Amino acid sequence: MSANAPVAIIMGSRSDWPVLKKAAEMLDELGVAYDAKVVSAHRTPERMYAFAKGAKAAGYKVIIAGAGGAAHLPGMTASLTDLPVLGVPIESKALKGMDSLLSIVQMPAGIPVGTLAIGEAGAKNAGILAARILAVTDAALADRVAAFSAAQTASVAETVEDA
Amino acid sequence: MSANAPVAIIMGSRSDWPVLKKAAEMLDELGVAYDAKVVSAHRTPERMYAFAKGAKAAGYKVIIAGAGGAAHLPGMTASLTDLPVLGVPIESKALKGMDSLLSIVQMPAGIPVGTLAIGEAGAKNAGILAARILAVTDAALADRVAAFSAAQTASVAETVEDA
Amino acid sequence: MSANAPVAIIMGSRSDWPVLKKAAEMLDELGVAYDAKVVSAHRTPERMYAFAKGAKAAGYKVIIAGAGGAAHLPGMTASLTDLPVLGVPIESKALKGMDSLLSIVQMPAGIPVGTLAIGEAGAKNAGILAARILAVTDAALADRVAAFSAAQTASVAETVEDA
Amino acid sequence: MSANAPVAIIMGSRSDWPVLKKAAEMLDELGVAYDAKVVSAHRTPERMYAFAKGAKAAGYKVIIAGAGGAAHLPGMTASLTDLPVLGVPIESKALKGMDSLLSIVQMPAGIPVGTLAIGEAGAKNAGILAARILAVTDAALADRVAAFSAAQTASVAETVEDA
Amino acid sequence: MSANAPVAIIMGSRSDWPVLKKAAEMLDELGVAYDAKVVSAHRTPERMYAFAKGAKAAGYKVIIAGAGGAAHLPGMTASLTDLPVLGVPIESKALKGMDSLLSIVQMPAGIPVGTLAIGEAGAKNAGILAARILAVTDAALADRVAAFSAAQTASVAETVEDA
Amino acid sequence: MSANAPVAIIMGSRSDWPVLKKAAEMLDELGVAYDAKVVSAHRTPERMYAFAKGAKAAGYKVIIAGAGGAAHLPGMTASLTDLPVLGVPIESKALKGMDSLLSIVQMPAGIPVGTLAIGEAGAKNAGILAARILAVTDAALADRVAAFSAAQTASVAETVEDA
Amino acid sequence: MSANAPVAIIMGSRSDWPVLKKAAEMLDELGVAYDAKVVSAHRTPERMYAFAKGAKAAGYKVIIAGAGGAAHLPGMTASLTDLPVLGVPIESKALKGMDSLLSIVQMPAGIPVGTLAIGEAGAKNAGILAARILAVTDAALADRVAAFSAAQTASVAETVEDA
Amino acid sequence: MSANAPVAIIMGSRSDWPVLKKAAEMLDELGVAYDAKVVSAHRTPERMYAFAKGAKAAGYKVIIAGAGGAAHLPGMTASLTDLPVLGVPIESKALKGMDSLLSIVQMPAGIPVGTLAIGEAGAKNAGILAARILAVTDAALADRVAAFSAAQTASVAETVEDA
Repeated sequence: MSANAPVAIIMGSRSDWPVLKKAAEMLDELGVAYDAKVVSAHRTPERMYAFAKGAKAAGYKVIIAGAGGAAHLPGMTASLTDLPVLGVPIESKALKGMDSLLSIVQMPAGIPVGTLAIGEAGAKNAGILAARILAVTDAALADRVAAFSAAQTASVAETVEDA
Repeated sequence: MSANAPVAIIMGSRSDWPVLKKAAEMLDELGVAYDAKVVSAHRTPERMYAFAKGAKAAGYKVIIAGAGGAAHLPGMTASLTDLPVLGVPIESKALKGMDSLLSIVQMPAGIPVGTLAIGEAGAKNAGILAARILAVTDAALADRVAAFSAAQTASVAETVEDA
Repeated sequence: MSANAPVAIIMGSRSDWPVLKKAAEMLDELGVAYDAKVVSAHRTPERMYAFAKGAKAAGYKVIIAGAGGAAHLPGMTASLTDLPVLGVPIESKALKGMDSLLSIVQMPAGIPVGTLAIGEAGAKNAGILAARILAVTDAALADRVAAFSAAQTASVAETVEDA
Repeated sequence: MSANAPVAIIMGSRSDWPVLKKAAEMLDELGVAYDAKVVSAHRTPERMYAFAKGAKAAGYKVIIAGAGGAAHLPGMTASLTDLPVLGVPIESKALKGMDSLLSIVQMPAGIPVGTLAIGEAGAKNAGILAARILAVTDAALADRVAAFSAAQTASVAETVEDA
Repeated sequence: MSANAPVAIIMGSRSDWPVLKKAAEMLDELGVAYDAKVVSAHRTPERMYAFAKGAKAAGYKVIIAGAGGAAHLPGMTASLTDLPVLGVPIESKALKGMDSLLSIVQMPAGIPVGTLAIGEAGAKNAGILAARILAVTDAALADRVAAFSAAQTASVAETVEDA
Repeated sequence: MSANAPVAIIMGSRSDWPVLKKAAEMLDELGVAYDAKVVSAHRTPERMYAFAKGAKAAGYKVIIAGAGGAAHLPGMTASLTDLPVLGVPIESKALKGMDSLLSIVQMPAGIPVGTLAIGEAGAKNAGILAARILAVTDAALADRVAAFSAAQTASVAETVEDA
Repeated sequence: MSANAPVAIIMGSRSDWPVLKKAAEMLDELGVAYDAKVVSAHRTPERMYAFAKGAKAAGYKVIIAGAGGAAHLPGMTASLTDLPVLGVPIESKALKGMDSLLSIVQMPAGIPVGTLAIGEAGAKNAGILAARILAVTDAALADRVAAFSAAQTASVAETVEDA
Repeated sequence: MSANAPVAIIMGSRSDWPVLKKAAEMLDELGVAYDAKVVSAHRTPERMYAFAKGAKAAGYKVIIAGAGGAAHLPGMTASLTDLPVLGVPIESKALKGMDSLLSIVQMPAGIPVGTLAIGEAGAKNAGILAARILAVTDAALADRVAAFSAAQTASVAETVEDA
C-alpha cells in the first residue's frame, strides 16, 4: 500500500481486476498514487464497513468502486464515508452489465455515486475523473490532466485508413 | 416489538410501508408474528449492520426486506446473517421497479436473496413464503397455510361477470 | 432417490442440469440430501402435477425448480404445493434469461416463488437458501451454514494479484 | 355456457375480463359462439388441468387464454391439450405487460402458443384469429371474416380531420 | 411446390431458412404438406402482395411467416389475406430478436398474427401450431398430433444423467 | 390536396394526427407545402401500395410516415418508392413507443427509413428534416431553415427563472 | 451570477429546472455557492462551447449538467473542459429516462461523466457529490457534509407508522 | 478528399470504419462521391465544431455520422449545421448498440437526425438514403437508385435452397 495514496480502487471480486486495472493504469499515467484491493460487499461485509468508515482517516480523497450484477459495493461504500465515490459497473454474464449499471446508478437521494460506463471504458474514465477531482486543488495534476486531454485529441487521426 | 416474533419486515424507507404492509397483513392472516421497522441500507448503514448481525440472536427466523431503485437492503442483510432473506422490489418512479428487481435478484454466488415480484403482489407473497418456510417444522401453521391456499382456490369464481 | 431427502431439485429439461448441478453441489457441501429429476411443466404436465401434489407427502421440505424461456415450472409447482419453492432462471439463448427471470419472479399475489439470479450463481444460491431455510430448525445445519459463510469470507484475499 | 361453442375464452382473473371482453365482442361480431370463464393457472391449477384436458371433448376447437405478469395460463393450457391455443398478454402494473408477453410467447419447442399483442388490441385480434382458424373449413364464416376485413378497410377515411 | 399443400412457409431472406426449416421438419414429421419460399416484404413487396392476395386461391390454409429486425412480413401478409398467419421472429444480430418479436407481435387491433418464440423453438412451434389448426377438422391429423404430444412426453426421462 | 406539395405526411391511423400535426405545423412555419392523409399499412394495404408506388409521379419529394406498435408503414412505404422516407414512431400504450421505434428503425440493408424520436419531438423533427432535405437545392428554403435555427438558438434564455 | 461560485449547474432546457433545482437546494443547504443557467447542447451549441471552454477560467471547480432524451450536454461539456462533470439524466416522456441515462453514462474511454440517478434523486445527489468533491480540500465544508450525513441518518425513524 | 463530394461520412473512431465502410461502398455503387473522416465529438470537439460549421461551405449536401455508446456525434453535428444529418448507431460491446441507438434517435424537437438501424445494415442504408435525398433533384442519380432497387428485387430468389 502506497503511503498517502489519494485514491483507493476497490472491487467486489479479484475477477474484476482485469477491468479495474484500466483505472489503475490511467492513474499511473496521470501520476496519481492509489491502492487497489478486493473488498466484497457481500462476502466480506465487515471488511467493507471497516474500509469505508476508515477511508478518510487513511488519507484517501476519492474511492473508485467496481462491482457486477447486484452491485452493492459502490453504494454501500458511499453510505459509509463522506468521500466522493465513483462506481464502475462490471459487465455481467447474462445481462451484460445492465443489472450492474442500475444497481450502482439508481441510488436514492442522499447518497451519491458518480457512475461511469459499463466495463473497461468506465474503469478508465473512473481513473480520469478521480484525477480531475484531485486536480481541482492540485495545479500540477491539473496540468497533467490537461496534457493528457490534449494528447488524446492530437492522437485522433482524421483519416479512416492507415497511410 | 412482539416478543419472539419469528419474522422481521424491514424496509429502506417509511414510504415503502404501504407496500410492505401487504406482507404484514398476510402474516396476520396466517397467524405469524412479526416486527416491522425502517432500516435503510444507505441512510442508516450501521443500524442495518446491527440489525442483521443480531437478527438470529433476536429470535428471528426469516427476514423480509423491501427496497426500491438501487435496492441494497435485501442483499446486504443476506450478507450479514445466515437467516433466509426474502426480497421485495419496490416499484420505482422512473424505471417502474426494474432497477429494484435487478438490484435484488442478481446476487452473486454465495449470498442468496429469495426475490418476489415487484410491488404489492411481491410483498404479499413474501408474507406467504415466510409462512411456508416456518411451516416446514410447524404443523399447525402448515394447516393454516393449507387452509389459506384452499380458500384462495375456492374464492375464484368461474363466471366472468357478477350474477 | 435418497430416502428422506429434504430437498427436491427439479428442472424443465435435462439440458438444465449443468446449471442446476451447482445447487446440488452446494447442498452436498452443506450436507443436505436431495433428489434431482427432470419434470417439464410443458412436456410432462402430468408428471409435474403428480410430483408437486405429492411432494409434501414424499417428505420434501423445500423445492428448487429451474427453467428457462417461458419458465412455468417454478410457479406451477408453487401453485400445486404449500412447500417453499425456490426458482432458478436458466439463461436462455436469445434473451439471455430475462424472459426466464420475469416468467418466474412476477408471480401474482397468492403464490410465491423465491427467485434467485439468472444462471449458475442463482443455482448455487438456491442450494444455500434451501439450507438456510432448513437450518431454521436444524442447529447442526445452521452451524454448517455459518461455517460455510465464514469460510467464504475468509477466502476473499484482499490483494488484487497473486503474490 | 353455449351448447357447442367452438371457442373458449379463459383468463387468469376476473379482473382480466374488461380486456378479454374485446375478444368476445369480436367473436360476437363475426358470429362465432364462445364460452368465457375464469381459470387461474396459479390459484385454480386443478380447474385448469380439468378444463384443458377436457376441452377437446367439450367440443372446443380453439382456446383463447389471457393472463398477466408471470402468465402461465396459455402455455400450461397448450401443454394439456392439442387444440390451438392463442395467448393474450394482459398489461401488468409495473412492467406494462412485457413480463406477460415474454411469459407467454417464449414457449419451448414442442408446445406452441400463438401470441397476440399486449392488451385490448391483442384480445380483439385473438377473436379474429380464432375466427380465421375456424373459417379454414367453414365457408360461411370465411365470408363473414372477409366482410369484416373489407368493412374495416372501407372505414379508414383518408382525411386526417373530420369534414 | 406440392400440389394442394395446406401450409405455406415464407421468409424474408434465404438466410432465414436454417431457422424456418425447423417448421418444415415438424410439418414433415406430422405429415402435413407445405411449400417454402422467400418472400421479402421489403425487397420484393410486389411478390409479397401477389403471394398474400393469392394465398387462399392457391389452396393454402395456414401461412407461417418468419422475419427478423423490423420484421414486417408476417403482419403485412396478415393484412393481405384472411387466412390465419403465424409469425416467427428471427434472432437478429444486435438486439437478439427483441426487435423482431415486437415488430411481429404488437399488431394493431384488426389484423392478427399468432406469434411464436424467437428463433428455432418458435419455428418448430409454428409447424406444430399449423398442424393443430388443420387438425381441428382433420381427425387423422389430430391423431398424429396427439401421438406426437404423447411421444414427446414419453421421451422426457426423469433422470438428470445418462445411466 | 395542395397542387405540387413536395411533402406527403401519412399515418397509420387518424388517431396519430395529433402527433403528426407537429410535422405539419413545422412545415407550415418553414413554408413547405404538404399533403396529409391516413394510409394504414395493415387496414388499407392497397391504398398504401397505390400511394407509395405513385408518390414520385404525384410530385412528392419526401415522405413522412408515422405509425405505432408493430409500425410497418414507414418501412413498407420505403420498399415501394425510391423517395426518401422519414419515420416517426408513435408512443404506444403498453410499451411507450419502444415497439414502434424498433419496428421502424431496424430496417434490413437495402431499404432505408430515416427514423426520428418517439412522439411529438420526432414529428416536429421530421418536418424540419424534410425541409433540410428540400433545402439542399432550394436556396430560399435554406435561408428559412437557417433563420429558424437562428431564432431557435436566440429563444433559449440563459436564466433558469422568469425575471 | 455569484462571484466565485465553485459549482455551475447547467441544463438543456428551462423545463429541466424543477428537477435541477434539487441540486441547487442541496448546495444551498451545504453552503456551497453555485450559478445555474440554461445551456442547450443542441439549440445553443456555441453557448455550450463557450461556457465549457471558459468554465475553469470562470472559477468553477465542478459542473453539474442535466439533460433528457438524447442527452448530450454532460458528455460534450466533459469533452470541452478538464473539470469534473456530473451528469443528471432527466426523466423523459416516452422512455422514462432510460434514454437519458444511457446517453450520459455510456461515455467512451477518455471523457468521464460521473452520472447520478434519473430525476430528482439524481439531481439532489449531484449537489451532494459536488460538495463531497469540494470538501476534499475544504475542511469546513467537509464538516458540513458530515453533519448533513449524520442528520440524515438521525432523521430515519425506525417505526413504520407515526406515533 | 474528393473535390465537391456531396456526402461526408464522419465517425467517432477509426474503429467504426469497418461498419461505416458499408455506407461508402453503397455510395460507390450508386455513383455518389464522398469524403470519409474521423471526427470524434468527445476527443476532438473542436474538429467537430469546425467540420460541422463549415460543412455547407465545403459543398457537402448530406452528412452521415456514425458513433457508438453515448453517441453524440450525429446530434451535435445536426445542431451545428442545417444540412440533413443521418445517424448510424454502432453496435456497442455491452449493450449491443441500444445505447447508441437511443443516444442518436431520441433528439429533442428542433434538431433532427434521421437514424438508421444499428450496425452494418444501418450504414449501408445511410448510403442509400443519402443517395435518395440527392436524387430528389438529380434525375440521373434517381435512375441509378431505381436501377439498384430493381436489381435488389430481382436478386431475391424465391427458392429456399440452391438448385
